[in-house]
Amino acid sequence: MKNFVFENPTKVIFGQGQVSRMGAEVKKHAQRVLMVYGGGSIKNNGVYDQVTGVLREHGITWVELAGVRPNPRIDSVREGVALCRENHLDMVLAVGGGSVVDCAKVIAAGVNYDKDPWDFFEGKAKIREALPVGVVLTLAATGSEMNVNAVISNDTTKEKKGIASNFLLPKFAVLDPTYTYTVPPFQTAAGIADIMSHVFEQYFSANHDAYLQDRMCEAVLKTCIYYGPVACSQPENYEARANLMWASTIGLNGILSVGKLTDWATHMIEHEVSALYDVTHGAGLAILTPHWMEYVLDEPALPKFAHYAHNVWGITGDNEKETALAGIERTRKFFQSLGLPTRLRDVGVEEPSLELMAERAVAGGTLGRFKKLGKEDVLEILRRAF
Amino acid sequence: MKNFVFENPTKVIFGQGQVSRMGAEVKKHAQRVLMVYGGGSIKNNGVYDQVTGVLREHGITWVELAGVRPNPRIDSVREGVALCRENHLDMVLAVGGGSVVDCAKVIAAGVNYDKDPWDFFEGKAKIREALPVGVVLTLAATGSEMNVNAVISNDTTKEKKGIASNFLLPKFAVLDPTYTYTVPPFQTAAGIADIMSHVFEQYFSANHDAYLQDRMCEAVLKTCIYYGPVACSQPENYEARANLMWASTIGLNGILSVGKLTDWATHMIEHEVSALYDVTHGAGLAILTPHWMEYVLDEPALPKFAHYAHNVWGITGDNEKETALAGIERTRKFFQSLGLPTRLRDVGVEEPSLELMAERAVAGGTLGRFKKLGKEDVLEILRRAF
Repeated sequence: MKNFVFENPTKVIFGQGQVSRMGAEVKKHAQRVLMVYGGGSIKNNGVYDQVTGVLREHGITWVELAGVRPNPRIDSVREGVALCRENHLDMVLAVGGGSVVDCAKVIAAGVNYDKDPWDFFEGKAKIREALPVGVVLTLAATGSEMNVNAVISNDTTKEKKGIASNFLLPKFAVLDPTYTYTVPPFQTAAGIADIMSHVFEQYFSANHDAYLQDRMCEAVLKTCIYYGPVACSQPENYEARANLMWASTIGLNGILSVGKLTDWATHMIEHEVSALYDVTHGAGLAILTPHWMEYVLDEPALPKFAHYAHNVWGITGDNEKETALAGIERTRKFFQSLGLPTRLRDVGVEEPSLELMAERAVAGGTLGRFKKLGKEDVLEILRRAF
Repeated sequence: MKNFVFENPTKVIFGQGQVSRMGAEVKKHAQRVLMVYGGGSIKNNGVYDQVTGVLREHGITWVELAGVRPNPRIDSVREGVALCRENHLDMVLAVGGGSVVDCAKVIAAGVNYDKDPWDFFEGKAKIREALPVGVVLTLAATGSEMNVNAVISNDTTKEKKGIASNFLLPKFAVLDPTYTYTVPPFQTAAGIADIMSHVFEQYFSANHDAYLQDRMCEAVLKTCIYYGPVACSQPENYEARANLMWASTIGLNGILSVGKLTDWATHMIEHEVSALYDVTHGAGLAILTPHWMEYVLDEPALPKFAHYAHNVWGITGDNEKETALAGIERTRKFFQSLGLPTRLRDVGVEEPSLELMAERAVAGGTLGRFKKLGKEDVLEILRRAF
């Protein structure tokens, strides 16, 4: 196990009706907040009314930034930064899924930075402070509600990039599973693929001595597999929505990756796909993951994949390779059964772009640590997934 | 899943050599600390020299409270409180196992409380503040390094009682697996039984809808089962010591119990045993646990025990009861294989005391939530375990 430091003080407030506790949490930090949300679904399902009701009740005033899109844009960040400055706001409250949360985080970091917030993503500036961020989550997927990461897209440069900073860690996250009841099956499925992909990136690590973390990874994967079909077919099943929501948080709050040399190649490849084609992140991951698995499956990786097949899917057998391949096939079939696409061509990707994606994916060096991938490797995975 | 709030800001600094980071952590809070430790093993294995070396290097002065015993006594707490006051110390640094950590926590809470710290345990006073606590852990067992709990014994009243307060949460915990290399096999085994018992108390919950938490519980149990024999036979196996140390922390830092109606009956019974006979906590738990399991195993509990047997021990079979019983038997045999005792009579307990133990155990009402136990139930479990 590698040496590590783990510290995650985000206060998780979980369960039906817990939004009522949000007012007191906000007031620890601010009287005036920027409320960030997406396409307006929170106005249809009652979440907007509940959140603003609590704010009003606690005498907290707010300004709104609406319309944050999936694969959130740096333009929305800029807009949010301007609103915070103009209105002297001192907290950013994200009400939405991971895109809204990521956008809110970078707005918070940008308010007291005097240049353009895209600088953070280009390595031109380091985040040195941020307004406090609060979260009311409406989608189980990214884990952004309890971590230091944010991913933002840039329409001008056609890039999608991630950053990490302790300053971005939310102060609190309200996780009410009923807020995900209205998430349609496809988005629910994409969220599940995203959670599972986060776990794969941590599970398939370059070191093999973090046994406890591997078993915990399997716990999250089994939860997704058990409740995924339930949530897609019975959207108001509380038990399923609750377990998936908590799985999304555990999946990427740092507890699974401690002591590990994690991979993240699949995510880096997917970022290039959705940077060019605005593909739903989880759908892109569902397409790429089985191909990544098959591509990296060779001698030293076999036992780990066989463990995966056995521990997660219950596949038994004497032949390690057959077991491993059967586990990968079950993974592919599982995503398919949730209604997720299986080919890049089906989500609008055009073949001539694969080369550019591969090139960009390795612009910063080889990808992954479970198996290091160069441009030709990435291109081959993209081709197989096309 | 029940509604919950999870917040645990303890900074875990994990791995070989990480004590070097301790100085900076202490200095965030204090220049003058009370260093609390136990019977002196840290002077033999080099930990004392490393810790004091780091303190000296950072210009931190310290006063020592040595000799804290397993099942730490309120007298040690009183002594520590007096030392803090006399010497105007502003942090308590625990260097040891769970007993030392618990003692340090209650000292921290007692310094600014103007009456006797035993009041906290009798419900006469609530903890309203505490000095910051830091931990350098030398035994994988209690999880106290990352939680809000403390258990203290009182020689005068022959009681052993627990308290919980957010003020007791350590600011940081240095977890260096090599610091457990010199823990003898019996203490190592007792620590493993303690970790597993913590998990059982959370796993066998009154509600059955916290699927993810149950799978995470199984992850910790499997880790104990996998590495327990290794650590006992190869005390300097880093991988085993590291996984067990992290298992102890994960086992009781709150992450397994969220959303659950946990049990804790076995712990409450064991507290009465070791209050009267000063039994090693983990050994007492190893004796009592299989008997508790058999006693509560009836119709509604069967599926959970069958899951336990299957998921943790890999036992398969069509008959749920046989599977469940086989799982319990494996648990008993596992503890035995680690050299732990199987009968209360073997650890000095006298039969006439069982009645008093049972009476005291239920003094505050029935025990447990997985199955509620009255005095006769507890007495029967104690008799079977005798």
